[in-house]
Amino acid sequence: MIISKVRNIVVGQSGGPTAVINSSLAGIISKARELGVDKVYGMHHGIQGFLNEELIDISEYIKTESDIELLKRTPSAFLGSCRYKLPQIEGNEAVYDKIFEIIEKYEIDYFFYIGGNDSMDTIKMLSDYAAMTGKTQRFIGVPKTIDNDLPITDHCPGYGSAAKYIAISMKEIIRDNESFGAEKPTITVVEIMGRHAGWLTAAAALAKGDDCDGADMIYLPEVTFDMDDFSERVVKLAKEKSSVVIAISEGCKIADGRFVCELGKASDYVDAFGHKQLSGCATVLANKAAEVTGCKTRAVEFSTLQRAATHVASLTDINEAFNVGALAVKAANDGETGMMITIDVISRTPYQVGYRIYDVHQIANVERKVPKRWIVNNGTNVSKEYLDYARPLILGELHPIYVNGLPRHLVLKKG
Amino acid sequence: MIISKVRNIVVGQSGGPTAVINSSLAGIISKARELGVDKVYGMHHGIQGFLNEELIDISEYIKTESDIELLKRTPSAFLGSCRYKLPQIEGNEAVYDKIFEIIEKYEIDYFFYIGGNDSMDTIKMLSDYAAMTGKTQRFIGVPKTIDNDLPITDHCPGYGSAAKYIAISMKEIIRDNESFGAEKPTITVVEIMGRHAGWLTAAAALAKGDDCDGADMIYLPEVTFDMDDFSERVVKLAKEKSSVVIAISEGCKIADGRFVCELGKASDYVDAFGHKQLSGCATVLANKAAEVTGCKTRAVEFSTLQRAATHVASLTDINEAFNVGALAVKAANDGETGMMITIDVISRTPYQVGYRIYDVHQIANVERKVPKRWIVNNGTNVSKEYLDYARPLILGELHPIYVNGLPRHLVLKKG
Repeated sequence: MIISKVRNIVVGQSGGPTAVINSSLAGIISKARELGVDKVYGMHHGIQGFLNEELIDISEYIKTESDIELLKRTPSAFLGSCRYKLPQIEGNEAVYDKIFEIIEKYEIDYFFYIGGNDSMDTIKMLSDYAAMTGKTQRFIGVPKTIDNDLPITDHCPGYGSAAKYIAISMKEIIRDNESFGAEKPTITVVEIMGRHAGWLTAAAALAKGDDCDGADMIYLPEVTFDMDDFSERVVKLAKEKSSVVIAISEGCKIADGRFVCELGKASDYVDAFGHKQLSGCATVLANKAAEVTGCKTRAVEFSTLQRAATHVASLTDINEAFNVGALAVKAANDGETGMMITIDVISRTPYQVGYRIYDVHQIANVERKVPKRWIVNNGTNVSKEYLDYARPLILGELHPIYVNGLPRHLVLKKG
Repeated sequence: MIISKVRNIVVGQSGGPTAVINSSLAGIISKARELGVDKVYGMHHGIQGFLNEELIDISEYIKTESDIELLKRTPSAFLGSCRYKLPQIEGNEAVYDKIFEIIEKYEIDYFFYIGGNDSMDTIKMLSDYAAMTGKTQRFIGVPKTIDNDLPITDHCPGYGSAAKYIAISMKEIIRDNESFGAEKPTITVVEIMGRHAGWLTAAAALAKGDDCDGADMIYLPEVTFDMDDFSERVVKLAKEKSSVVIAISEGCKIADGRFVCELGKASDYVDAFGHKQLSGCATVLANKAAEVTGCKTRAVEFSTLQRAATHVASLTDINEAFNVGALAVKAANDGETGMMITIDVISRTPYQVGYRIYDVHQIANVERKVPKRWIVNNGTNVSKEYLDYARPLILGELHPIYVNGLPRHLVLKKG
């Protein structure tokens, strides 16, 4: 059934931001305007804000084509994000009734949620509840995650830009690290995000090329980390090379199940909520490397920069993020619900993609890891298959709009 | 006395690299070619390599105008750097005789050294020894340091690009930090380089603008750090704001003389040479903030990225770095020795500079700090005077030459 005249739509952003999450928002707004949607509402801080009826009339903030361009170049979640997982429907009907009450109050026909695994779960639950209760609103998921761990889709918007940031920064760190080393190498260990999947850390391999030796070792969480093997390898590298650079995922674990970061002093740190912080594994390895080689070592963490560096976003990624947003609106308008937009790669060279819609039940809560066959050299590097997969995703640049030497961002200034 | 026909010249790079140290090298090469110099030699790893007669004939690596352009866009020291300080002349004449023996063997008339305080000391010593022994070769220093702590010159090449990287990254971190905070703010503490001088950390203040609240507190090493005052202020900020971002210099100390980083667990770490590593003060503050506010906190360190991020170098800085290199060659050709090129700012708006030569004896080993009167709010921010000083230095972009999505660098591949 196609709703003849779409009244209003609502869009939310959820989970860790990316460099291009706002490009998907831009795609949704653009397509909605093209279709003559009455009002585009934004959820302030995702479903959490929506439950408090914190809706933003986007037309107040994004009026012109220039605003759309600026939005595409703005890092982090323009609307604000949240980490809020909807409860199971059974026994929590009140929460769902509340959501649909707000949906109906604001005359919302289509509901879009830009996010990763948890966000797709939100789309699944809401579309299920609508089906159960005979509601006609449509719910479509828009993929977004630097972790690149959503299944079905070839890759996730947000990943290409994070990978590009990681590859560029690795190249610069490697160049810097090579500047000394006349007598003994400096050893730098770089820690990269990714608690369960090694996609981000694998991107360190992209630094290698005619003008760069690349990282000497790359450790993904898909493989058990062996400290003795690491020590042997780093001693050998320190003898052979005038510069050693190593990448490790924050999520790497040793055989007994402990995180690498738990092996050092940093492991004692527990945050205000009693959670162990996953950081410090680069420091653990840097200390170990110093101990076994006697070389100067350094630990570097990319931290939130890897998901916020829109100033070096991949144009390919920005465009794809925009497209999945726009196509989500098209899918809803075509009568779909409970679906997520996926990216199919038709050809890697030359790079060509297509888009599909896919049942969100097959996607929510499934985590896709780096294939084991792509992890080589006894778990210390990734294969050509990974490089062929990832290289097209970092292609192209969309430079920021610089004002007084700094990238300009679009900001939501409420009230 | 002007040498009628310059035979060969030699250039070295020393100390921590910067995003634009190779632009100064490009300036030297360009001007030397213009003057018809026979050979431009590069020291492989500075004076340390020179002492081992590791000289590179630059014409083998940099042939075309395109090579010069690529060199300007290449981070880190193209020739390799070192941290080697020449000994006092008295009692160490053999070292100096060795240097001059190599200088004469390679028929070198002009000697250029691109670096900071220690490098200017090298120029001072060599020009003194030449004067003492009646040598006619000329020695000119080319300023370079992200620390911006050389005296006499208004600012140092390398600083503008590091400041631009810091300001851009702060903006992106602040945007990211604002994305959550629906209920409680996230508190992020960013650690910035600068052991004695706060110039780099002050650059965090540049993030503030129409589209960015800027850092909430900025701590420079010029002012004693007070943990109780910090705790009070961060509690207040956490109550008032939905996002808190703080910048601190790695060199900050408390009243009893200990570094802030020594107050946490990270302080136990001593590197292979027994040196305490100056890192971890962001973690110390993040832990303290979590303790007193109950908020989620995060520590970020820019580490070597702040000196290697040529992909966001300041065009102003690149051009000035090029010019001080070229003018060093001109100065030598004009008969000068024992001098450093300085930058004078004739007008800040519109920005206009001039260059001078200055006696290196007045510069070597003198460290310039941020003026105390520019540090305000009880040592938690910098004043408008600093912003007026620094804003012109980050103006303009010179985008990398991208190949397959990554900045291309020029590399020295020694046979």
